[in-house]
Amino acid sequence: MFKYELIKEEKDTGARLGRITTDHGVIETPIFMPVGTQATVKSMDVHDLETMGAQIILGNTYHLYLRPGQEIMEKAGGLHSFMNWQHPILTDSGGFQVFSLGDLRKITEEGVHFVSHLDGSRHFMSPEKSIEMQNSIGADIIMCFDECAPADADYDYTKKSLEMTSRWAARCKAAHKRPDEQALFGIVQGGMFKDLRAQSAREITAMDFPGYSIGGLSVGESKEIMYEMLSHTVPLLPEDKPHYLMGVGSVDALFEGVIRGIDMFDCVLQTRIARNGTAMTSQGKVVVRNATYAEDFSPLDPECDCYVCRNHTRAYLRHLIKCNEILGARLLTYHNLYFTLRIMEKIREAIKNDTLLALKEEVFQKYGITS
Amino acid sequence: MFKYELIKEEKDTGARLGRITTDHGVIETPIFMPVGTQATVKSMDVHDLETMGAQIILGNTYHLYLRPGQEIMEKAGGLHSFMNWQHPILTDSGGFQVFSLGDLRKITEEGVHFVSHLDGSRHFMSPEKSIEMQNSIGADIIMCFDECAPADADYDYTKKSLEMTSRWAARCKAAHKRPDEQALFGIVQGGMFKDLRAQSAREITAMDFPGYSIGGLSVGESKEIMYEMLSHTVPLLPEDKPHYLMGVGSVDALFEGVIRGIDMFDCVLQTRIARNGTAMTSQGKVVVRNATYAEDFSPLDPECDCYVCRNHTRAYLRHLIKCNEILGARLLTYHNLYFTLRIMEKIREAIKNDTLLALKEEVFQKYGITS
Repeated sequence: MFKYELIKEEKDTGARLGRITTDHGVIETPIFMPVGTQATVKSMDVHDLETMGAQIILGNTYHLYLRPGQEIMEKAGGLHSFMNWQHPILTDSGGFQVFSLGDLRKITEEGVHFVSHLDGSRHFMSPEKSIEMQNSIGADIIMCFDECAPADADYDYTKKSLEMTSRWAARCKAAHKRPDEQALFGIVQGGMFKDLRAQSAREITAMDFPGYSIGGLSVGESKEIMYEMLSHTVPLLPEDKPHYLMGVGSVDALFEGVIRGIDMFDCVLQTRIARNGTAMTSQGKVVVRNATYAEDFSPLDPECDCYVCRNHTRAYLRHLIKCNEILGARLLTYHNLYFTLRIMEKIREAIKNDTLLALKEEVFQKYGITS
Repeated sequence: MFKYELIKEEKDTGARLGRITTDHGVIETPIFMPVGTQATVKSMDVHDLETMGAQIILGNTYHLYLRPGQEIMEKAGGLHSFMNWQHPILTDSGGFQVFSLGDLRKITEEGVHFVSHLDGSRHFMSPEKSIEMQNSIGADIIMCFDECAPADADYDYTKKSLEMTSRWAARCKAAHKRPDEQALFGIVQGGMFKDLRAQSAREITAMDFPGYSIGGLSVGESKEIMYEMLSHTVPLLPEDKPHYLMGVGSVDALFEGVIRGIDMFDCVLQTRIARNGTAMTSQGKVVVRNATYAEDFSPLDPECDCYVCRNHTRAYLRHLIKCNEILGARLLTYHNLYFTLRIMEKIREAIKNDTLLALKEEVFQKYGITS
């Protein structure tokens, strides 16, 4: 089952409070989804994800297709069972990863031929193949196989690309074998061209998907352009369906996206910078690796009540990161995800109280974001 | 404070049930101590160590001397506070690591000049310097700075080495500034020569330390020789003091050591093989990395009730290890330490019931050890 309820729209913005119900549980929106590329949110176990309050996590079809592969995923009974995460999961289509392979892939109308980044083996991914793999993975929310055009793609390329993405969306819908258990989202493309975004939104929404994603943003364009494209595109999506902005999750983009009517976000930023030794805090980013924290025995974020901030100092975390200790990556990952999930919680509360713009101003000021 | 109580000796063996009381808590012996080299048991947080039932962990003075260094360790208020582990800690003297540096160190009567394996910087470690650093770290149990002679050292070298170790032990005792809070153990050396072991035991025990370590074993000699040296050496130690066999922790050696009167063990085996993808189970070692486990949806160890065995399959763990995911190393580390601590628990129970040899036979048979 899949149900989206729009609970409330904020007074002064386009922000929406909502609720998604799936077979594996309820998701309060707007929500940030930690990315669990290879059947694990890097360094986190499922208990960590539960205690930090993750409502839904993301899996990457491209990676799971290569390892452990479709056969093992099916024998395991799907990703929920394979990784023992009994809450909602969303999978991407594999398209973004395949297109990122650059010279290692060739796009045709039928699908994409590509070479594995792991062992050079040759593969073919098509709308049908992507859906088949996503049916095996069994996520509660799955994505159409789309082409994500680069930020600098010209008008003609982008137009042809979005039109192929529309044809692929129809093939994905036709190929989908488990529509009652897995909600297939359509993806709106169209690059940085407003009329193409409109064309894509028109073609994709005409197919009546249970939810809609906005793809092809945060691919190299400026934040101003991204926000402008969002302001233009979100109003073209049905109000009674969830709106998912793919691959975006910086603190400013979370607020700006929500304000423009986005309900769902995912991003590897939180986990990636954690492994490099950078923490997101209420006072802005803290590069824990830096020498300045060597003798700083205060918590990472004085306003945070997560396990890491309650138990460890910046000096200890810096030591772990400097020594390349696994625990350093792990503790910072936990904190960064916790921090982001708390922001989403505050955002939901602010929408309830019609105080989102005030919250944004407060958070941006402390975090050091100029808007 | 430091107190050792010998509770009971097993009927048919030299095994001892005991209790060590320190300022940071009580340790039931015989015990295995997880190794936390750089102020972290690799990939484990302190909550993991608590839930697995670790009573005491080990820190390495050499590593902590280089990073974070003595000044930060002091400002942090010692290792307990630095890593927020509020239970007992033991530190080695740094001697073993320094001597392992090979060409990068030069031994004199005064101490050892060495070059850091990290950045090539030059350092000097002496008995006084080691104790000073260990006083700053503040572990409940600390070690004399000794020379650990290689397994193939000849009689003359070994004799001169143990005599220097005895002189160093006296210097360590004299240099120790916190004897009321930190128990300084003497270390018996003497290589594979029984009369030299006897000489070392005589010289070291004459100095009346609160506990005694046996060093210089498991350095390349056969297990038979190690057990023979233990059978010869342990009886030379005072009965009313704890006996610590340094750097040893394989399943067979834990039993054979306990049977010969050893109370304390530490080893990096459990955590190192975990990171390489090998699990210790009641049925013997399982090389989870192997393809044979790709579709094995049973738990790592059917007899284990740890978090990992209750929640995850061999197929999932193999996938994580194959993908070099941090979580794979982490889950196997947790299991291997849990498994070893449960063995020690069973050993203590068996000593209580005078059934240690029966337990040994049962465990060895299932684990596949021929004794």
